Amino acid sequence: MRSLWLNTLTRQGLYRLSTLKYSTSVEPKEPLVKTKSIPGPKSIELKKQLDSVQATGTIQFFADYDKSIGNYIHDVDGNILLDVYTQISSVPLGYNHPRLFNVFNNEQNVKTLINRPALGVFPGKEWPEKLHSVLQSIAPKGLNKITTMMCGSCSNENAYKAIFIWYQNKLRGNTPLTDQERNSCMINIPPGAPKLSILSFKGAFHGRTLGALSTTHSKYIHKLDVPSFDWPIASFPQYKYPLEENVAYNKKEDEKCLSEVQDLIKQYASKVPVAGVVVEPIQSEGGDNEASPEFFQSLQAICKKNGIALLIDEVQTGGGSTGKFWCHEHFNLDGPPDVVTFSKKLQLGGYFHNDDFAPKEPYRIFNTWMGDPGKVLLLEEILKVVKEDNLLANVNVAGKVLKEGLLSLEKEFPHILNSTRGRGTFLAINCTNTNVRDQIVGALKLHGVQTGGCGEISIRFRPALVFKEYHANIVLDRFRQVLKAI
Amino acid sequence: MRSLWLNTLTRQGLYRLSTLKYSTSVEPKEPLVKTKSIPGPKSIELKKQLDSVQATGTIQFFADYDKSIGNYIHDVDGNILLDVYTQISSVPLGYNHPRLFNVFNNEQNVKTLINRPALGVFPGKEWPEKLHSVLQSIAPKGLNKITTMMCGSCSNENAYKAIFIWYQNKLRGNTPLTDQERNSCMINIPPGAPKLSILSFKGAFHGRTLGALSTTHSKYIHKLDVPSFDWPIASFPQYKYPLEENVAYNKKEDEKCLSEVQDLIKQYASKVPVAGVVVEPIQSEGGDNEASPEFFQSLQAICKKNGIALLIDEVQTGGGSTGKFWCHEHFNLDGPPDVVTFSKKLQLGGYFHNDDFAPKEPYRIFNTWMGDPGKVLLLEEILKVVKEDNLLANVNVAGKVLKEGLLSLEKEFPHILNSTRGRGTFLAINCTNTNVRDQIVGALKLHGVQTGGCGEISIRFRPALVFKEYHANIVLDRFRQVLKAI
Repeated sequence: MRSLWLNTLTRQGLYRLSTLKYSTSVEPKEPLVKTKSIPGPKSIELKKQLDSVQATGTIQFFADYDKSIGNYIHDVDGNILLDVYTQISSVPLGYNHPRLFNVFNNEQNVKTLINRPALGVFPGKEWPEKLHSVLQSIAPKGLNKITTMMCGSCSNENAYKAIFIWYQNKLRGNTPLTDQERNSCMINIPPGAPKLSILSFKGAFHGRTLGALSTTHSKYIHKLDVPSFDWPIASFPQYKYPLEENVAYNKKEDEKCLSEVQDLIKQYASKVPVAGVVVEPIQSEGGDNEASPEFFQSLQAICKKNGIALLIDEVQTGGGSTGKFWCHEHFNLDGPPDVVTFSKKLQLGGYFHNDDFAPKEPYRIFNTWMGDPGKVLLLEEILKVVKEDNLLANVNVAGKVLKEGLLSLEKEFPHILNSTRGRGTFLAINCTNTNVRDQIVGALKLHGVQTGGCGEISIRFRPALVFKEYHANIVLDRFRQVLKAI
Repeated sequence: MRSLWLNTLTRQGLYRLSTLKYSTSVEPKEPLVKTKSIPGPKSIELKKQLDSVQATGTIQFFADYDKSIGNYIHDVDGNILLDVYTQISSVPLGYNHPRLFNVFNNEQNVKTLINRPALGVFPGKEWPEKLHSVLQSIAPKGLNKITTMMCGSCSNENAYKAIFIWYQNKLRGNTPLTDQERNSCMINIPPGAPKLSILSFKGAFHGRTLGALSTTHSKYIHKLDVPSFDWPIASFPQYKYPLEENVAYNKKEDEKCLSEVQDLIKQYASKVPVAGVVVEPIQSEGGDNEASPEFFQSLQAICKKNGIALLIDEVQTGGGSTGKFWCHEHFNLDGPPDVVTFSKKLQLGGYFHNDDFAPKEPYRIFNTWMGDPGKVLLLEEILKVVKEDNLLANVNVAGKVLKEGLLSLEKEFPHILNSTRGRGTFLAINCTNTNVRDQIVGALKLHGVQTGGCGEISIRFRPALVFKEYHANIVLDRFRQVLKAI
């Protein structure tokens, strides 16, 4: 029962532990793999049970979230994995962080969960304060407005709409709306439903709903058989590593891609004008492809010059794992991007923007729930812990250890690994080919380390913000064991 | 503190009360309006505070969810409104239902909230059982598979994708996938990203993301300036009331619309073939437009004949307020529809379907979270209460009183009201024009009754499932007062 359990936690003083003390005191010392393969027999049995009601083809194993703790995920077969994939990069403080238990040990917060409002119509009395104290506290500099949503796809979809509305309003100027616009949009045709586009990049991932999917180009299986908007797609830089030895080549990559962007803007101007450009600070699902600060600076300049909005999609990169709260803070941009979308580690979705991207008329960007106040309560506590425990500094320290270790492994196993890259703990490394990559990801799991693949040949590391130097050393040690056995 | 508050609730025995006893014992006896206008001064002040960070143009007032109880929503100015709009039809058991407090008075359930998994990859050990016992228990007959999502728009978007994939697989047969298909879909063009469409109806509302919005045609402000797929749109029956006096006219409406559907399927066959038809059982946002069981039976027959999928969007109608759990159960269809989408009262989103609409390859219908187990916990308790307290029967009893009362008012005020319609408590009535409708909705609020407008001239009633006869009588009494004063 709750009270007994609360008492136990309180007696142990767990509520008051800092993240560091908490991790070292209650986490396992190291991973433990009990079964010969993962999924183990109990996971396979549960998969069969689930299969009669839901597709299970993507399931890796069934987790035991009662037992999972800190950086370690427990599965139902008793395996304990050091989790550096964290639910596709969506767990900021690890599992069962004691501070998060507190959130719902509070009458008002439970009421928030069970009385979910239509936030756009009947928000609760605490909503303005929560937006100011929680979401405003992490707003990218210069972006004073927040539109809340529930997931990454919805955030991008609605951000695209905000961009289209902004773009058309610029064109319309002070001309009043015509009946033709009103009527044609109702039947999906111009001028009311204009031919406009969002320019995206090859390798990008911005979600899977039909608008977002038109800007996603990471894997064919995401897109096959789904109708799409014919929107322009530019190349994204494909760097050679190490960066310091390939400066000229990579600079040319930047130039080539930026030039494509400019060409596409011109080319589409007469048929489907580009209203906005959407870009990830690091292409994640597409293979952890980086671009230089200079690339992003020039991209922003191109957008400004052409009267096009720049949307930076921080759904996967936002929340601290690159060593700054927003990855685009690394880019030293000339002013803020126009729109920044978020989700995953931030628990709810949404986008930051300035006043220009807030439609003046009501109900243009709207839906029933407009986010979820219950998730904001979690985010509130998460942000407190990030600050109090100085987790961004921790990310930089642990990330340095992990990155240097990966670079060492790369030198030790040059026939298998190359192209270590990334910021903070948001890191990736390439393998010789897809088969080798998949083999390594599988073997790492059987050595107690849960990673994820991305792109064709990359392994991505997405540990929680509570991942520390000694966790990095465990990952590197197990990785070495795996590589030696290949 | 929680323990004190839990003790109080327990002492009062509130946890064990049935819904009926609960409503009568703790709800206010009647609405109470303290301010001259709504929003009152405190709401206006909060609106100002929120306005600096978020658009507020759609906000009616700020609610006090600590005080709101049962069918009554309290606002920050001390007004207590009988809520027959319920957060755009998304509150099944009213506010602060005692049974819902129990849900998070449980260690494992709190762990579900704070350890949110990527359900498609690492579901928790309890997920298969929850899907079977909770979601499977409400599956429309014949639809054995569930794909979970988070909101109505995402549910429709992904259901459309499932339909497109199903359709293309039928066309492809056993032919292997070609490189051309794989490559072309990556750049958004056929044959990989085929020209296919979802046929929708004028007046429909299926969501606001770009795919869903292409099938939404209720109000221009939802669609203006947003690019759209050029997909076919058929007329939806516009009935004359009372139904029993307009049988021939309404039958012609059905025939006209069904004939349009057939014509559009033919017309689009050569350019953008129709893969699916999406339809609401009662068009809600568009004005509570009903169609007859015969209309839906014929629509299903047309779909079957043409090898097209039928998707019934029960996002607003699902969950019991029409007197059956799914509104389409009223239609006596020849077998289940192919796909049924849900959200709102069910707390999470998703769609029911059969095996044909589950893609064989993994990662085709997928996203990070694939729903939210925390919402399933709420749904589990909601469904128990619906069953134990026999709330569907309650809906039919209360709905009968409300509908008969509206019909009486219509006779009493024929110059103002007409066309009472709907099922269960899912009811609507038309006003002479938009101005009169808006005036009545505003005046009702100042008389203590929160309703919502829909379409051009309709008022919609969307009480919770715990709305009872005596609540209906309060609504009717206040409505009469308002009408007399016009």
